Amino acid sequence: MAKSVFYHAGCPVCVSAEHDIIDLIGSNGVEIVHLGNDRSRIAEAEQSGVKSVPALVTPNGNVLHINFGASMADVKG
Amino acid sequence: MAKSVFYHAGCPVCVSAEHDIIDLIGSNGVEIVHLGNDRSRIAEAEQSGVKSVPALVTPNGNVLHINFGASMADVKG
Repeated sequence: MAKSVFYHAGCPVCVSAEHDIIDLIGSNGVEIVHLGNDRSRIAEAEQSGVKSVPALVTPNGNVLHINFGASMADVKG
Repeated sequence: MAKSVFYHAGCPVCVSAEHDIIDLIGSNGVEIVHLGNDRSRIAEAEQSGVKSVPALVTPNGNVLHINFGASMADVKG
């Protein structure tokens, strides 16, 4: 099964949502990307349509923005 | 396993997110509630902390607001 990608930036809203997503999907079904620690993937996230974090990009390319932790502008700083 | 509850109101954003959530979690893991058709559950959704639809309430009671379709005020009309 193709994995989803969960983008976050370490904010409290992000961490809480990360736990929920792993509980729901299972850790094997989702790659976790911390954009604060892995800034080389910010461009990839934006190209996928991620406007804010936390966000989950599904295997079919849809973006689910989950609650609101920070805008991508904040992540880029 | 306790089910999650996915609240929506039939909007295009809701329907798209519903398909994604069912793909990710599986239809056995989530109850789908259409608040436009089942208005008796609006109060339950609000008590769970749902501020807008679509939203997923996880088995541990966390609310994941997914993208934005409509506010609960819009749903109540």
